[in-house]
Amino acid sequence: MEAEFIDWLRNRLSTGHEIGLGPGDDAAIVRMAGTGECVVTTDLLTDGVDFDLRATDPRRIGRKSLAVNLSDLAAMAAKPVAAFVSLALPRTGALELAKELYEGLLPLADSYGLSVAGGDTNTWPGALVISVTAIGRLTQHGPLFRSGARPDDHILVTGSLGGSLLGHHLDFEPRVREALYLKEHYPLSAGMDISDGLTLDLSRLVRESACGAVLDLDKVPISPAAYRLSDDHGERSPLEHALSDGEDFELLIVAPPDAADEIVKRQPLDVPITPIGRVCEKPGLWRLLADGQHEPLEPRGYEH
Amino acid sequence: MEAEFIDWLRNRLSTGHEIGLGPGDDAAIVRMAGTGECVVTTDLLTDGVDFDLRATDPRRIGRKSLAVNLSDLAAMAAKPVAAFVSLALPRTGALELAKELYEGLLPLADSYGLSVAGGDTNTWPGALVISVTAIGRLTQHGPLFRSGARPDDHILVTGSLGGSLLGHHLDFEPRVREALYLKEHYPLSAGMDISDGLTLDLSRLVRESACGAVLDLDKVPISPAAYRLSDDHGERSPLEHALSDGEDFELLIVAPPDAADEIVKRQPLDVPITPIGRVCEKPGLWRLLADGQHEPLEPRGYEH
Repeated sequence: MEAEFIDWLRNRLSTGHEIGLGPGDDAAIVRMAGTGECVVTTDLLTDGVDFDLRATDPRRIGRKSLAVNLSDLAAMAAKPVAAFVSLALPRTGALELAKELYEGLLPLADSYGLSVAGGDTNTWPGALVISVTAIGRLTQHGPLFRSGARPDDHILVTGSLGGSLLGHHLDFEPRVREALYLKEHYPLSAGMDISDGLTLDLSRLVRESACGAVLDLDKVPISPAAYRLSDDHGERSPLEHALSDGEDFELLIVAPPDAADEIVKRQPLDVPITPIGRVCEKPGLWRLLADGQHEPLEPRGYEH
Repeated sequence: MEAEFIDWLRNRLSTGHEIGLGPGDDAAIVRMAGTGECVVTTDLLTDGVDFDLRATDPRRIGRKSLAVNLSDLAAMAAKPVAAFVSLALPRTGALELAKELYEGLLPLADSYGLSVAGGDTNTWPGALVISVTAIGRLTQHGPLFRSGARPDDHILVTGSLGGSLLGHHLDFEPRVREALYLKEHYPLSAGMDISDGLTLDLSRLVRESACGAVLDLDKVPISPAAYRLSDDHGERSPLEHALSDGEDFELLIVAPPDAADEIVKRQPLDVPITPIGRVCEKPGLWRLLADGQHEPLEPRGYEH
C-alpha cells in the first residue's frame, strides 16, 4: 500500500522552504538557517498505552503524535521545522487509518509552519504504533535547557494541571508560541514541558540543575478536569491529580525573581502563567508549610 | 523502567562533538557543520515483518535497525552524525531486550562515528517495534539524488544481489564508505540503495529521473545466497532472486559513461562494482536482448 499512500500524501503536503527534498528520495534534506544547529526530538506512541484506537477518532491520535513532539520543541525554545512520521499499521483498513491519522496531523503541522518531510509507512500483524521525530531550529535567543535553574529562581507554570486523561492529552495545544515569546522577552534560567506529571518532571529539572525546589501547593493551578476526575473516582484529590497526572503538556519555566515577577504581573501569554514555588540549594523536592518551613515532597508521575 | 534504562544507556554512549546535548533534556541539539543542511532518514522495523524476534539474537536486530538507516544516508552520500532510537518493547523482559538491542546497535554506531543522541523507550502489550531516525551531513561534494540519471549513463551496482533472507538482511554492511568514496572521486549522476529489490528500486530511480533503463541481465551479480535459496525452494531462479529480493542494501549508482568505465576498471572499493545496464530516454524498465533490441521488464520487489 505504500506507493498508493505516498501518492495520496504527496498531494497533501505543503513543504516549507527549509526542506530541500521531501518524500520520494532516500532521505530528506532539511536546511537549518543561522547556526546550523538543529534541535531533534522523538516520541513513540502505542495503542493501548498512549491512546485507545477503538474509542478514539484517529485524527485526534494523529494530531497527538505530532503535538507531543511540538511540546518537546517548545520545551527547548525551538521553532518547528520538519517532522518525520513512521507508522506500524494493523493490516485491516491500513490505508484508511493512515489517511485519517494524517488528516489530524497535517493541520497541526501547517498551523506551526512545520513540514512533514518524510517517514516510513508499514503494515504488520500488530496494533497501531506511531513514531514521530521532529526537528526544530533555535532562534537568536538560544535554547532553553533543564539544567540552568539557580537557587532563589522562581518556578512558573502555564495553564492548569491534572485530569488530562479526560481528553486534554489528545487535544492540547503545544506551548510553542508561549515558549518562544518568553524566551525572547525574558532571561529564563531553565524550562521543560510537563509530560509525566508536575512533581516528577520538576524533580528531573532540579536534578539536572543540581539544586532543589520548594513548591507552594496552595498556588498550583488545578484544571477543571482534575476536579471532575477526583469527583468521579474519589481516589485522589484534585491537587493530587494536578501534582502527578501525566500529559499536561504545559510549560514549567524557571526564571530569576525580577523576570518572574514581571511575567506574572504582565501575564503576556494567551494562557495564565502562575508562580508555584522557588528553586533552593538543597537537592530534592520540598513542600512549603504555613510557618515558612518545608518538608519533603515525594515526586509522583508517570514512569515509562 | 525508563529511568533505570537511561542510566544504563548514558554510560554506554559515546557522544560526538556534533551533539550539543544528549539524552536527558527534552530534545537533542545536533550541530551541522558547513552549510547547515542535514540529511534525515527514518525506518521503522516490526517483529514478524522485518525480523523474527523468536528466532534471532536481539543484537542482530538492533544492529539492523540502525544499518538500514545508514544505508539510506549512504544512498544520499551523507556522513552519519546522529541517530534517535525509539522502542516499543513487549512488557516481559523489556529491560534485558532493550539492552541487547543496543548492544548490537552501538558498535555499529561507533564504527561509523555516529552518536545515539536520543530516543524514546516504551513498553506496551504488543510485539517489538523499533523506529530509528538518522541524521547525516553532506560533504563538500554534495548529495546523491535519485533524480539525476540521464540517457546513456551507465548503471552500476556494488556487491552481489538476492537471497538476503538467508541472513544478509541482518548482517549487511551499509555502503557508507563506498558511497562517500565514489561521490568524492567521480561525477555521479544518481544513486540509491537497493532495499526493495533491484528492478523495483531501479524503476523508482529512473521514474524520478524521468527516463528509463535497459538492464543486461547476464551481467547482474548474483549472490551465493540467491543460488542457495533457489536450490532450497526451487520456485525462482537465482537471477530472479537477484532481480527482485528485497534488503540487498547494495548501492545502485548511475554515472556518465567515462566515469563508469573508470570505476569499473579501477575497482576502487572493497567490494566489486559491476556495470549492469544503461539509462535510456524511453521511460520504464527494459531487458537487453541478444540482438541488441530490448523488451519490457516487469519491476518486481518488496512492496510495503
